[in-house]
Amino acid sequence: MGVHKMWDKYPELKRELTEVSQLIISSIHIRDEAIEKKIKTMIQSGGKMLRPAYTLLCAQIGPEQDPERTKAVAAALECLHLATLVHDDVIDQADTRHGQTTINTAYGNKLAIYTGDYLLTLAFSMLSHYADSAPQIKFRGFEADKILAGELTQLHGEFQTSVSVKRYLAQISGKTAQLFAISCYAGALSSQAKEKNARHAWYLGHYFGMAFQIIDDLLDYKGKSELLGKPAMNDLNQGIYTLPLIYALKADPQKLGLLLQKRNTLTDADMVAVLEIIEKHHGYEKALSLARRYTQKALKELRVLPDGTYKAILKELTQDLLDRTM
Amino acid sequence: MGVHKMWDKYPELKRELTEVSQLIISSIHIRDEAIEKKIKTMIQSGGKMLRPAYTLLCAQIGPEQDPERTKAVAAALECLHLATLVHDDVIDQADTRHGQTTINTAYGNKLAIYTGDYLLTLAFSMLSHYADSAPQIKFRGFEADKILAGELTQLHGEFQTSVSVKRYLAQISGKTAQLFAISCYAGALSSQAKEKNARHAWYLGHYFGMAFQIIDDLLDYKGKSELLGKPAMNDLNQGIYTLPLIYALKADPQKLGLLLQKRNTLTDADMVAVLEIIEKHHGYEKALSLARRYTQKALKELRVLPDGTYKAILKELTQDLLDRTM
Repeated sequence: MGVHKMWDKYPELKRELTEVSQLIISSIHIRDEAIEKKIKTMIQSGGKMLRPAYTLLCAQIGPEQDPERTKAVAAALECLHLATLVHDDVIDQADTRHGQTTINTAYGNKLAIYTGDYLLTLAFSMLSHYADSAPQIKFRGFEADKILAGELTQLHGEFQTSVSVKRYLAQISGKTAQLFAISCYAGALSSQAKEKNARHAWYLGHYFGMAFQIIDDLLDYKGKSELLGKPAMNDLNQGIYTLPLIYALKADPQKLGLLLQKRNTLTDADMVAVLEIIEKHHGYEKALSLARRYTQKALKELRVLPDGTYKAILKELTQDLLDRTM
Repeated sequence: MGVHKMWDKYPELKRELTEVSQLIISSIHIRDEAIEKKIKTMIQSGGKMLRPAYTLLCAQIGPEQDPERTKAVAAALECLHLATLVHDDVIDQADTRHGQTTINTAYGNKLAIYTGDYLLTLAFSMLSHYADSAPQIKFRGFEADKILAGELTQLHGEFQTSVSVKRYLAQISGKTAQLFAISCYAGALSSQAKEKNARHAWYLGHYFGMAFQIIDDLLDYKGKSELLGKPAMNDLNQGIYTLPLIYALKADPQKLGLLLQKRNTLTDADMVAVLEIIEKHHGYEKALSLARRYTQKALKELRVLPDGTYKAILKELTQDLLDRTM
């Protein structure tokens, strides 16, 4: 199974992403063959690989090209992402991801927890290998701990109807934007970009990540799940109140608050009622509008970066995000 | 709550361990105060801090003293250990640890999984801060991923009566000895020890860790749980077959194999029968004898290291281990 079809129109990038994927695969060594195979299949089963793609593209910002180093950094960041997916699947009790049985379903939660830990540790091992040759690529600078601090804050805020836009933005900044920021920054640094440009890359990733997560949360309401033929609304069921709902809660706290008191025992009729209130108060439009503003900010960072073919691709990727439906 | 009372007889080391504990506490920043407080309480609730103690002691091997760096490395290694404890408690569905409610019991599995991830990430962040000043302290050299590979192998071997001594030793080498080896090695490197001596420190930690885990597993059969007043036998119930049982399985595969077919539905009478078979075939003595051999190997590594007060303490700690009852 190759990399995601979305990369077909960028053959060079697609080739590099394939190599990143192969590097991850070849770095996994577990004494138990069945487990090793399962993890490798999971990795190869067609995630988008957006984060390593941003790393590879931002590695064209600086003057030096070191493909081996860049690929290792990109692989490490994808591993970090994969680790969070494996743990998310345990937490969400997810059965499948990209059409493959999840590790928790195939081998149980225990093994899935350790698999996530393994991938997390592997990510840091890979990064460290290149810490020497690019001293700035330091984990501290990455502040990867912020990613988990964001997740922790979100979890503890479950089912709280008092959640503010500010708190929501802080949460997605940690859990999503941080890793995109790191991915862009690390790519820039691996090409010996000037510190000023590396910072622009950081913010490019950060703003892109913010927009990406807002859209992702929007799709949970507006998108139609292939399986269900209706919105998945996973977040609502799990008490994760995202932007469209937060806007509606601000506009009509009483009616919506009453509905949400049922927490995770909402009926289908309740869900429809929630959707209607969001619709009435333009929750989706407001969320989309904020995502659009973050996208504009990302593109503004991109504009000041040195010229190169990578810029057109990054621009297209960043804009396409607003129109994505999955 | 201070550090464990076992350190009372080494006041200098106790002071340093207190500082390491404080450094960990002050490094934890989570937006949610309740969660932050819970994690900090967990950290302060009296684990032995054996791994940072070995780091601090081995930091007297080399000629240079950099207490700040050494403490940061020691703190990172304790964080790595704490991360695995938090995840272990999820996996074992443990209610309490050191008299405190576990995070999974207080806040649920989800939050506990992310807390473990946070501590794991924090550990690497702390280490990386000092990667510059001690370039050899690299995560790759640490091969921390081996720790998780060991855990994964163990989990997938659950309830397998065919488990060999060799496989058991490979498992504990990964899940326990590796982190002790890293702790000693990192301590030595942080004092600019010669590579040869750093290697001796590595093996000192490795052999100590092997003996430590064998004894730990032995205590699960032989020790009396304070709560139950009888052996805990957690491992047996969870299908983790450790050394005493493995020796007995080799001696009497039929009788024992028949009993173990019941997997986790063993009655109290079955457990007593298992204990008797182990006793009959000297499973405990054989395990203790192997732990003793590893201890001897650890002490042999210690002997060739440069003189210093740290050697007497390390010798005592390593020998005391064989007599510990908790």
